[in-house]
Amino acid sequence: MSIESFYPPRRILMGPGPSDISHRVLQALSRPTVGHLDPLFIGMMDELKVLLQYAFQTKNAFTIAVSAPGSAGMEACFVNMVEPGDKVIICRNGVFGERMRENVVRCGGKPIVVDDEWGAPVSIDKVEQALKENPDAKILAFVHAETSTGALSDAQELGALAKRFGILTIVDAVTSLGGVPLLVDEWQLDAVYSGSQKCLSCVPGLSPLTFSPAAIEKIQSRSTPIQSWFLDQSLVLGYWSGDGKRSYHHTAPVNSLYALHEALILLQNEGLEMAWRRHQNMHDVLKLGLEMMGFKFVVDARYRLPQLNAVYFPQGIDEATIRRQLLDTYNLEIGAGLGELAGKAWRIGLMGYGAREENVALCLHALDTILHKE
Amino acid sequence: MSIESFYPPRRILMGPGPSDISHRVLQALSRPTVGHLDPLFIGMMDELKVLLQYAFQTKNAFTIAVSAPGSAGMEACFVNMVEPGDKVIICRNGVFGERMRENVVRCGGKPIVVDDEWGAPVSIDKVEQALKENPDAKILAFVHAETSTGALSDAQELGALAKRFGILTIVDAVTSLGGVPLLVDEWQLDAVYSGSQKCLSCVPGLSPLTFSPAAIEKIQSRSTPIQSWFLDQSLVLGYWSGDGKRSYHHTAPVNSLYALHEALILLQNEGLEMAWRRHQNMHDVLKLGLEMMGFKFVVDARYRLPQLNAVYFPQGIDEATIRRQLLDTYNLEIGAGLGELAGKAWRIGLMGYGAREENVALCLHALDTILHKE
Repeated sequence: MSIESFYPPRRILMGPGPSDISHRVLQALSRPTVGHLDPLFIGMMDELKVLLQYAFQTKNAFTIAVSAPGSAGMEACFVNMVEPGDKVIICRNGVFGERMRENVVRCGGKPIVVDDEWGAPVSIDKVEQALKENPDAKILAFVHAETSTGALSDAQELGALAKRFGILTIVDAVTSLGGVPLLVDEWQLDAVYSGSQKCLSCVPGLSPLTFSPAAIEKIQSRSTPIQSWFLDQSLVLGYWSGDGKRSYHHTAPVNSLYALHEALILLQNEGLEMAWRRHQNMHDVLKLGLEMMGFKFVVDARYRLPQLNAVYFPQGIDEATIRRQLLDTYNLEIGAGLGELAGKAWRIGLMGYGAREENVALCLHALDTILHKE
Repeated sequence: MSIESFYPPRRILMGPGPSDISHRVLQALSRPTVGHLDPLFIGMMDELKVLLQYAFQTKNAFTIAVSAPGSAGMEACFVNMVEPGDKVIICRNGVFGERMRENVVRCGGKPIVVDDEWGAPVSIDKVEQALKENPDAKILAFVHAETSTGALSDAQELGALAKRFGILTIVDAVTSLGGVPLLVDEWQLDAVYSGSQKCLSCVPGLSPLTFSPAAIEKIQSRSTPIQSWFLDQSLVLGYWSGDGKRSYHHTAPVNSLYALHEALILLQNEGLEMAWRRHQNMHDVLKLGLEMMGFKFVVDARYRLPQLNAVYFPQGIDEATIRRQLLDTYNLEIGAGLGELAGKAWRIGLMGYGAREENVALCLHALDTILHKE
C-alpha cells in the first residue's frame, strides 16, 4: 500500500453547496491549532458569537456553531425542543421538510405534515388551518430556503402566525443565512439553524444555531431527558457561555471555527444588506442569460431564491454527461436535481463568495458552449 | 462592531488533545474545497477508507470517519448498536466510561456498570463476573485508553472475553489509535471509534469509526428505529460505500477529510509499529525527567499509556497559574486534571506529531524552570 497526498484542483463551486470559498477563509483554516480551552481561543469564540448574532440579526445569548454539519444542527433543534408525544407541525415542500418530519418521528414526537408542491413556498393559509385544527401543537417547523427546489418561504409571516397561536418555531436557514433577509429577532423565530458551507462561504462541517429565550425555556422545562448526549445543548452551553469558567463538553473543531470567524468577518465588512443585494444582482444577470438559452425556472419569480437557481434542462440531453463536461473542461460544478427534481432540473448556486460576476460569466459561457456542441 | 481576523500563536500542544499538527496536515487542510460528490473527492474517500483500515488493522468494509468529534463517534456506536431494553456492560474507570453509561441510558438501554479505580485498568475478573451474572447482556463497552487518567486496558483480553460469552463490543479508541497497539480484527472488536485530534495528529472534528460484520448484522436486525438521523450509519453507508452511485446523506466536511487523509499518509509512511515505538521512546525520556523532578505518575507502570502522562503535581502549588505561565512564556500547553483528578494531577500528552524530542526537552526544561522559581 502506498497512497499519496491528495491535491484537488481549484473548482468553481456553483452547486447547492459547498460554495466557493475565499482564500482568506482557507488561510484562516490552516492557522496553527491551539487548545480548545486556550484563553486566546475562548476570546475568539466570544467574537464568533457576536459575529453570528449579527448574521442572524439576533440578540439571543445562545448563539453558537454546532460542531457538525447542518443536518446535525437540524437534529440539535429537534432533540432539544421536542419531547415524546409533542405535536409538531411540519411544512414539507422539498427534501428538507421531509427530513424534519423524520427527525420528529425519531424524537418520539407526532408530526402533522402540511404539504406544498415542490418549488412552491409554504402556504400560509394551510399552516393557519393546521394550527386551528391542532390547538395542542407545540411547535411549527419549516424551511426558510428549500435547497432542493430554490423556493423561499415567508419566515416573517410564519413566525407571526406561530406567535399568534402561542407556539414555538424551528426554522431551517441553511441556505438563507447571508443570502436573503433573515431577521431572527424581528420575526420572532425561536430555534434557527444554518450551515457553514452555503452563503457564509466557509468550509462544510459546522452548523450555526441560535435559540430564543422561549426556546431555552422550553428546553429547561422538559420533563424527559434529551436523547442525544452530543447534541444536548444544555451541556454545550457550559462550554460556549461567556460567564466564567468554560466546562469541557467535547473538543471543539478549532480550525473550522477559525474559518467561520474569518468568513463572518468578510460578511461583517461587506455588510448584510450589501451581501443580500449582491446575491440578488448576480441572480438577475444569471437569470437573463439562462432564459436567453431557453431554460425555465422551477420556482415562480415571486418566491425564487437568488442564491439557488433550479432550472429545468432541455429534454433529451444526457444531463450527467454535461455536468461532467463542465467539471472536466471548466472545473465548474453545478448541482444535479434532488428528490422529485432528480433527472429533471439542475441547481445552480450563487452562494456567498460564489456570487460574483466572473462565476456567472463562466457558467453562462460554458453552458452555452457545451449545449451548442450537442 | 468591528472584529478583526484571528491570528493564533504557534502553541506546542502537550495536553490531552488536540495534539501538535504537522505543517503538512495544515497545508492539506487549506487546499481548495471541492464538492462532496466530486469524482476526485470520492476517489480520495476510497483511499481514506484504506488508510483508516490500516490504522485500525482491520478489513472491515464499514470503516469511515464520522463528520463530527469523538463524542459523536461514541454516540454513533451506541445509537446504532443498542436497542431499548438492551443490557450493556459498561466498564467505568474514568470520565469516558461514565459518558458511555450516559449514552446507554439515553438510548433506552440498561447499563450494568463495572467500576474500577481512576488510574487502574479495567479488571478482567470483574468483567467476567458481570458477564456470568448477566447472561442476557448484549454488549460489552469499554475504553481502551482512558484520556482522563492515562490508563491502558487490555482490549485483547476484553475482546476475547466478550466473544467467549457470545456478545459484541463497543471500544473507545480515541486516545489509543496510532499511539499503542490496537488490532481490531485480531482482537475481534466490533464497534471501535476514535478521534482525529489525538495520536493521528489531525485537526479536531472527525471521528474514525469501524464496524465488524457482526456489528453490521446487529444494526440490520434491529426491531426498533435508530433514534438519530444524523448518526444513522445505515444511511451514512450509502454515501461512503464504494459500490456504484453515492447517495447524499449530509455534506461531508471536505477540508477536514483532506487533513485526515494527509495525517494518515504520514502514519502509513512511518509505519504503525514505528509510531508505537516512537511514542514509547518519547514517554521513556519524559518519564525519566519528570521523576527526577519528583513527579509521581497516577497510573502504575504496567498500565501506563505512553501518550498520556497523568502526574500528581507538588502539593501547595497554584497549578492553574503554572499552566498559564507555561502557555504565556513558552507557548506550551499541558492539560489540567479532569473529573476526580481535577486539582490533583496534570495530563501531559505525547500524541502523534507531538511525540518528538524537541517537545519533551521543552516541557522538561520549562517545568523545571518555573517550579524552581516558585
